[in-house]
Amino acid sequence: MAKLRGKALVAQSGGPTTVINSSLCGVVQECIRSEEIDAVYGANNGILGVLLEDLFDITKESPETIAGLKRTPSAAAGSCRYKLKSLKDSARDYERIVDVFQAHGIRYFFYIGGNDSMDTADKLAQLAAQKGYDLRIMGVPKTIDNDLAETDHTPGYGSEVKYLATTTLESGRDTEALYTFDTATVVEAMGRNAGWIAAGAGVGHRTEEDAPHLVYVPEIPFTIEQFVKDVNETKKRLGRVVVLASEGLQNEKGEYLTSQTGAFAKDSFGHVQLGGVAEMLKAIIEKECGIKCRYNKPGTAQRNAMHFASLTDVNEAWLVGSEAVKAALAGKSGFMVTLIRESDSPYKVTTGFAPLEKVANGEKFLPRDFMNAEGNHITEKCRKYVLPLIKGEAPIKIGADGLPDYVRFKRYAVARKTPAFKP
Amino acid sequence: MAKLRGKALVAQSGGPTTVINSSLCGVVQECIRSEEIDAVYGANNGILGVLLEDLFDITKESPETIAGLKRTPSAAAGSCRYKLKSLKDSARDYERIVDVFQAHGIRYFFYIGGNDSMDTADKLAQLAAQKGYDLRIMGVPKTIDNDLAETDHTPGYGSEVKYLATTTLESGRDTEALYTFDTATVVEAMGRNAGWIAAGAGVGHRTEEDAPHLVYVPEIPFTIEQFVKDVNETKKRLGRVVVLASEGLQNEKGEYLTSQTGAFAKDSFGHVQLGGVAEMLKAIIEKECGIKCRYNKPGTAQRNAMHFASLTDVNEAWLVGSEAVKAALAGKSGFMVTLIRESDSPYKVTTGFAPLEKVANGEKFLPRDFMNAEGNHITEKCRKYVLPLIKGEAPIKIGADGLPDYVRFKRYAVARKTPAFKP
Repeated sequence: MAKLRGKALVAQSGGPTTVINSSLCGVVQECIRSEEIDAVYGANNGILGVLLEDLFDITKESPETIAGLKRTPSAAAGSCRYKLKSLKDSARDYERIVDVFQAHGIRYFFYIGGNDSMDTADKLAQLAAQKGYDLRIMGVPKTIDNDLAETDHTPGYGSEVKYLATTTLESGRDTEALYTFDTATVVEAMGRNAGWIAAGAGVGHRTEEDAPHLVYVPEIPFTIEQFVKDVNETKKRLGRVVVLASEGLQNEKGEYLTSQTGAFAKDSFGHVQLGGVAEMLKAIIEKECGIKCRYNKPGTAQRNAMHFASLTDVNEAWLVGSEAVKAALAGKSGFMVTLIRESDSPYKVTTGFAPLEKVANGEKFLPRDFMNAEGNHITEKCRKYVLPLIKGEAPIKIGADGLPDYVRFKRYAVARKTPAFKP
Repeated sequence: MAKLRGKALVAQSGGPTTVINSSLCGVVQECIRSEEIDAVYGANNGILGVLLEDLFDITKESPETIAGLKRTPSAAAGSCRYKLKSLKDSARDYERIVDVFQAHGIRYFFYIGGNDSMDTADKLAQLAAQKGYDLRIMGVPKTIDNDLAETDHTPGYGSEVKYLATTTLESGRDTEALYTFDTATVVEAMGRNAGWIAAGAGVGHRTEEDAPHLVYVPEIPFTIEQFVKDVNETKKRLGRVVVLASEGLQNEKGEYLTSQTGAFAKDSFGHVQLGGVAEMLKAIIEKECGIKCRYNKPGTAQRNAMHFASLTDVNEAWLVGSEAVKAALAGKSGFMVTLIRESDSPYKVTTGFAPLEKVANGEKFLPRDFMNAEGNHITEKCRKYVLPLIKGEAPIKIGADGLPDYVRFKRYAVARKTPAFKP
């Protein structure tokens, strides 16, 4: 494959994770090392920044800032939820993106994201090929949800689970100390459609005593009757109960619990309940089991908890970014870097490639046998899968004030070369 | 003062904290070192364990378990919210406690807790004196709320703030990356009546960019009009906004913004149980400011976050426990150990003593000048007070599975010597 000289563009998309910047770091450091890549631009807020030609020159950032990405949570280049459809339906947007690439001599595009991003990248690759514009596109996997097809797991997942398992087992100690009064606690995990996160954080249950005592995922239909039974049984056995539940719990009809109406859809004033699954489960526990319940909703804190991130995850996130660049330099295009688990013990991972299209159209659900027959906790198989991913504590830098020091880009703007565009 | 030989009893009370076990460790290690104290018993679940004569012998626990308390969150001996009233109204309970002490030769009682616990300890001291029973009682301060009178600050507060500030600034990075879509985030801080916690975590706002951008505390009446104005102004300036709000926000009439009704509306102390400030502020932001808002409610996670605790706090918690024992051995009784700040820079703390009665009847609110004139963020004075308390990261032990290893007592039961008692 002939060497291709030009600039690289990198963008981040979708929900932030603790380690998406580590992938960005891998991309940027590998680009800087190469001879063919003249500069690395970042798009402000993902594909939106490309459409708006809102670019900045990462090459001008200090090496300290670039290295500091590895210990900085969330998306330093900014992210977005701007959705591109088919090449036909979003033709104007796709054309615009290739125009911007051409105007700036962008020959390499690295897109760090989930399956929607891989879909966008796939279509861009097709359009560039149609137009005869020599462009190498590589996808870099990212999502706390761990639901990407074609890869053993996704960067972001390990750190999400390490933190959520830790905070759940810590909250479990609270319930344990106060069981004579605050007998139950519900912790709400992210995960709208897949139960990877809640199941993953189930590994905190190392002994009968350790929280979570019950785990519920969207893949297994939730019924109030079974839940009440589970809570009562656990309470009888341990005197307390900590429940870890996915935000996306669904009933037998596949409807989200939180979109249901009925006894728990309204509070005691008849107001529609504002919150989510945790509040609903708390209400069920208090009314149907007659015990006091608290709830914790870590929310976005769980996907940005750099202060207690998985070292394995941070390193793998960097690796997939770096491998994407190496592959593109070697002539590859239209693939996402994947993680292949060679062995569990010792844990060994290598990288591979999957066609963007296959990733775009896939979705990976939690295997049924990662959950027990009752559907209320994880199995050893799940534990074996998860544990290597949460190993090690990623180093961070603590400032003089006792809080973590995270970096920010200076964002050296790249001069515009195209007319204004309204997406 | 004559030497007093006998056993010691230690109990923990009220809401758990990240470092209450560190105080327990200080008490136990100091007792073991002394010649006068033959054994240290723990009461299961605070004063409830004394009433029920549900005691266990901490002296029999391994030195590793006792040392491990310093890196274990929540109350290892169990806590409770059992409220004793006046000596007259709860005469039966107080008499019972002294009976249990006498039956077991308890000559030293160390009570780790907040002002309700100091009140109980004070009354016990009075009753023992009336009965001519030689008993030395010392209080050990504990509360994340930092609202105890007579002490510069309380153990538990520094770790609470270190974690909450960190998770808020991390969540702020999420909002920063997604500001084109998820423009606002509300983080709910604990703090029923005093704003120490929310204000403390305001130190994460190191630059204009850093979250939280707005801080609200119960001491300053909350109005929706001003809040909407604050949010809109911040949004205009930064394009996004992260709000940190105390769960105990109150309107101009001193009424809680949200308070629940029904069976679980009040705890056994008669405190109104709160929840829902974050949901309410989210609803206001979405409706009145027209921007999308998320909310995070760390709940009990914030008071048990040993995985990122303040080293200063852990050490001071140990110190007040140890000093309580030293003072009791020297003949002191009826006092709580206090922390006296000798200087901010370098930070220097010594310990002192306050009569239990003074602590029991006091409550320390956030000084008005710790908040700015607008009442929507902290001042430099607040920052100067808080920063030394969150300094350093307490060491923890990570298990082979990548999660923290916390200890549990074996709980070697002490044989009962009194008839059964129903509190």
